[in-house]
Amino acid sequence: MNQPRQPDTLDVLRDALRGFAAERDWEQFHTPKNLAMALSGEAGEVIEHFQWLTAEQSADLAPEVRDAVALELADVLLYLVRLADVLDVDLVAAAQRKLLINAERYPVDRARGRSDKYDRL
Amino acid sequence: MNQPRQPDTLDVLRDALRGFAAERDWEQFHTPKNLAMALSGEAGEVIEHFQWLTAEQSADLAPEVRDAVALELADVLLYLVRLADVLDVDLVAAAQRKLLINAERYPVDRARGRSDKYDRL
Amino acid sequence: MNQPRQPDTLDVLRDALRGFAAERDWEQFHTPKNLAMALSGEAGEVIEHFQWLTAEQSADLAPEVRDAVALELADVLLYLVRLADVLDVDLVAAAQRKLLINAERYPVDRARGRSDKYDRL
Amino acid sequence: MNQPRQPDTLDVLRDALRGFAAERDWEQFHTPKNLAMALSGEAGEVIEHFQWLTAEQSADLAPEVRDAVALELADVLLYLVRLADVLDVDLVAAAQRKLLINAERYPVDRARGRSDKYDRL
Repeated sequence: MNQPRQPDTLDVLRDALRGFAAERDWEQFHTPKNLAMALSGEAGEVIEHFQWLTAEQSADLAPEVRDAVALELADVLLYLVRLADVLDVDLVAAAQRKLLINAERYPVDRARGRSDKYDRL
Repeated sequence: MNQPRQPDTLDVLRDALRGFAAERDWEQFHTPKNLAMALSGEAGEVIEHFQWLTAEQSADLAPEVRDAVALELADVLLYLVRLADVLDVDLVAAAQRKLLINAERYPVDRARGRSDKYDRL
Repeated sequence: MNQPRQPDTLDVLRDALRGFAAERDWEQFHTPKNLAMALSGEAGEVIEHFQWLTAEQSADLAPEVRDAVALELADVLLYLVRLADVLDVDLVAAAQRKLLINAERYPVDRARGRSDKYDRL
Repeated sequence: MNQPRQPDTLDVLRDALRGFAAERDWEQFHTPKNLAMALSGEAGEVIEHFQWLTAEQSADLAPEVRDAVALELADVLLYLVRLADVLDVDLVAAAQRKLLINAERYPVDRARGRSDKYDRL
């Protein structure tokens, strides 16, 4: 007998967000253009937590700051999943494809210890 | 008999990105501050695909544009997962927490058909 | 007899921001990297005002919203001027140079009525 | 006898951008919403130049990088001036107003040497 396959968290989030928007009649606002803006706005809120911190401070956040950042990252994820959904983009497949592209662009021997963009390696 | 539990896609991505960074000795660049910048830069690239489109055009992308956007969304996801990892933030738990907060902030009866922020409902 | 030349507004802002930072011992925080983050964060706040609006609504803001947006645009300008200053970049000269580049990239006869990027005209 | 007043650089840029858009029949694309997106996209390009640099490296750019950054800052300025124009916002007046607000929010004696936001001083 087969166990039911564990649903993937990104699928669960996608479905939750679909329901959330449908219940509130928000599909009218959830155009790809608007969601791309919302995504960017949330990324801006992440930035604001880190802008005056040194690299070291950014890696050693006070618990309440880390918690606030976690909720900003959640906002980015939620808009990202929703945007991918309305565009009918498979986010995980795209991420896996991009990982392969990156592996080719940044060969270990040439990219090691360097932060240069691939076209300058 | 237990089937092995299906690994979650976000965990798989997190582990892949850890390995990718470790192999290239890139942990030195992957401070939260730097990754927050990279995340924001990628969100900016998503924006650039949509900035001159009408809402309608944004929902009806040519296949090659949709494909390019998919890879930009992938970049956002990859940096988001990596940033959460170096901050030791559980992205899915944070997203679920944020969904609950949003459900409280945007009650169906008051939020229906309105795009106002919760503090103006 | 010569009248004193009217000082340029961008120079006045630059000097005011220099003084503001010096008085508060904020030069230590005003690295180009940090100011680039602050600039991006403020651009994100501009975005948030517009994300759920239609194009038409965005061109017909309520006075109190327009006023709030004006202060966000001010924030972008202040960080932009400050960032250019610490980088020793002449913002106006750069803008004039970019206008010339754009005039060449977007010839009137080919760009008219089209929002395509120059490499697709 | 009055000398003609020196035109202000921001007014000159505003007029140049108006003409540039009019000649190309681009006013249709230059809604506040779209220009806010373009502004944010350009701020994202500024970020990308700095994301992997240390604070020290960001203050000591190679000449060709500084030059590329100057053109990105120019893009931000051009979209900012254009956005303010279509919103009929006086950018300089808004900046001066914001400077006064900031002076009140960040009194020298309390803000000295601290990067905290005003509501935490």
